[in-house]
Amino acid sequence: MNALKSYTEFIDFELGKMNFPNSPVELYDPLRYFMTLGGKRIRPILTLLGNEMFGGSKQTAIPQALSMEVFHNFSLIHDDIMDAAPVRRKQPTVHEKWNPNIAILSGDVLLIKAYQLLSESSPEILPEVLNLFNTTAVEVCEGQQMDMNFESRHDVTISEYIEMIRLKTSVLLGASLKMGALVARASEENQQYIYDFGQNIGIAFQIQDDILDLYADPDKFGKQVGGDVIANKKTLLYLTAVSKVTLEQKEILKQLHNEQDIGLKVKRTRELFDHLQVRQACKQMMHNYYDTAMNSLEKIAINDKHKATLIALAEFLIQRDN
Amino acid sequence: MNALKSYTEFIDFELGKMNFPNSPVELYDPLRYFMTLGGKRIRPILTLLGNEMFGGSKQTAIPQALSMEVFHNFSLIHDDIMDAAPVRRKQPTVHEKWNPNIAILSGDVLLIKAYQLLSESSPEILPEVLNLFNTTAVEVCEGQQMDMNFESRHDVTISEYIEMIRLKTSVLLGASLKMGALVARASEENQQYIYDFGQNIGIAFQIQDDILDLYADPDKFGKQVGGDVIANKKTLLYLTAVSKVTLEQKEILKQLHNEQDIGLKVKRTRELFDHLQVRQACKQMMHNYYDTAMNSLEKIAINDKHKATLIALAEFLIQRDN
Repeated sequence: MNALKSYTEFIDFELGKMNFPNSPVELYDPLRYFMTLGGKRIRPILTLLGNEMFGGSKQTAIPQALSMEVFHNFSLIHDDIMDAAPVRRKQPTVHEKWNPNIAILSGDVLLIKAYQLLSESSPEILPEVLNLFNTTAVEVCEGQQMDMNFESRHDVTISEYIEMIRLKTSVLLGASLKMGALVARASEENQQYIYDFGQNIGIAFQIQDDILDLYADPDKFGKQVGGDVIANKKTLLYLTAVSKVTLEQKEILKQLHNEQDIGLKVKRTRELFDHLQVRQACKQMMHNYYDTAMNSLEKIAINDKHKATLIALAEFLIQRDN
Repeated sequence: MNALKSYTEFIDFELGKMNFPNSPVELYDPLRYFMTLGGKRIRPILTLLGNEMFGGSKQTAIPQALSMEVFHNFSLIHDDIMDAAPVRRKQPTVHEKWNPNIAILSGDVLLIKAYQLLSESSPEILPEVLNLFNTTAVEVCEGQQMDMNFESRHDVTISEYIEMIRLKTSVLLGASLKMGALVARASEENQQYIYDFGQNIGIAFQIQDDILDLYADPDKFGKQVGGDVIANKKTLLYLTAVSKVTLEQKEILKQLHNEQDIGLKVKRTRELFDHLQVRQACKQMMHNYYDTAMNSLEKIAINDKHKATLIALAEFLIQRDN
């Protein structure tokens, strides 16, 4: 997707115009640092695309697009503290490079900054813009809390897990598209369809992410294959396995949980999952969400060229080698 | 001020109507807990008063008033993490009662909730409401960062200290009054005057707070007299002393910094401060800010009854026994 690259560059250029004050330097340096760590800028691109599809130009939804990216970065800075994550995009996280207090406070400022950008909306759409954003922002926090709760729970169901990833990551993708559509004054129905499309693609993407952790081609995968297994994370693969195991296999799963040889741990887990056809079951779920997204796409009153763009974007997100 | 009590009860009643969802319980229980810890609800009362003075009724500025209180509570939850404070209003802080991650995330939700309340404003004033709130919210974060920076700095000036308390606490008092005036469609000049009044009263109040730490009547003071001295905090008293000491007295101040006998530490510090007439100098500064506030009050185009209410409130905040 070469078109994506030019959009990413456009967003990076616009983000570059965002001026953070110089003082207090301890508050704003972390933001200058974090906002230039890069990434594909998927969320603001979705807002620009959602806007263009309903007749907007690239210029008309810039503050709203940037707002989605700024919010996403706020949530990453705070999530990284909560997850005690040392690295983000191959660079130290804010709480690592500075300290947790600075990460809390600079994250807070970034959330306010997202609202400052939204406040640039035309007064006639501002209440709707805020309503969409507020609802989504609360949902993202709820998803993060569910994710943290799952760490210490042993009875997480597949549907709870799907609800968690829906809230934590997918609603923001749906809302980013809908935000663009809203700015272009699309009808309520069209706004809902494009939201549903984005949300379901988001769920499919997260499922794919879980599958790739264990089944990616190591040469093409950017990180260690089996990382989730080593960290005993309750991914969809794991929860699907748990839903299928015999009592005997459950014991094996327990032993693998404590296995110290990580090479052996990944290998044996994969053997058990293969035996249980976990990958196929998860791929089936992913395809179901993908199909649901496509059904929503069908209903949107936009021309085929624009639909093709959304399909290409969906394929780009989902169809990585597996 | 008996009138204040009925306003506090009114705000508590309205806050009680705010419905937090039940799930995830780990996210919303801390908010239910913290929002009912009490306090005088000064900020929302200022919004209601600012609104009534310019013709509004108690009902017309409720969401904006609650928003100021919700924002204040958000900042307390996050500040308590950063300050490692175990107790707030004689109860355990959120990060103590639950954990820091939950305090970060529930604080985030509270900030979003403040915006949800603001979003209930009439569309024609919504951009201005957001603009006032966004500016103030960023300033409060900047003030908190300055406060944290001061802990490790040894060259803090009195004017930097005043700027810190202005940002950290006073702008929110000014903004609370202005928010009410804005909702009542007061003129820009009147909005600015009432803001200036609130901000300067806020600075006077903070100076008074610093003075009381060392000079309060122990029988009437709710906490340990000399707490700031014991904690080696760089209050206005301390900074004023530093600005007046001889080289010899500077050495005494250094020794007192490390004094382990806290009774002796407080006593000797007070003796040195008395000798340097620190209390008088600080009281003079406080009176200057109080007078500046009264000058702004003079200019506001409201009737004398309303001015008397603001004066009574200012007196209530400032004139505690010292």
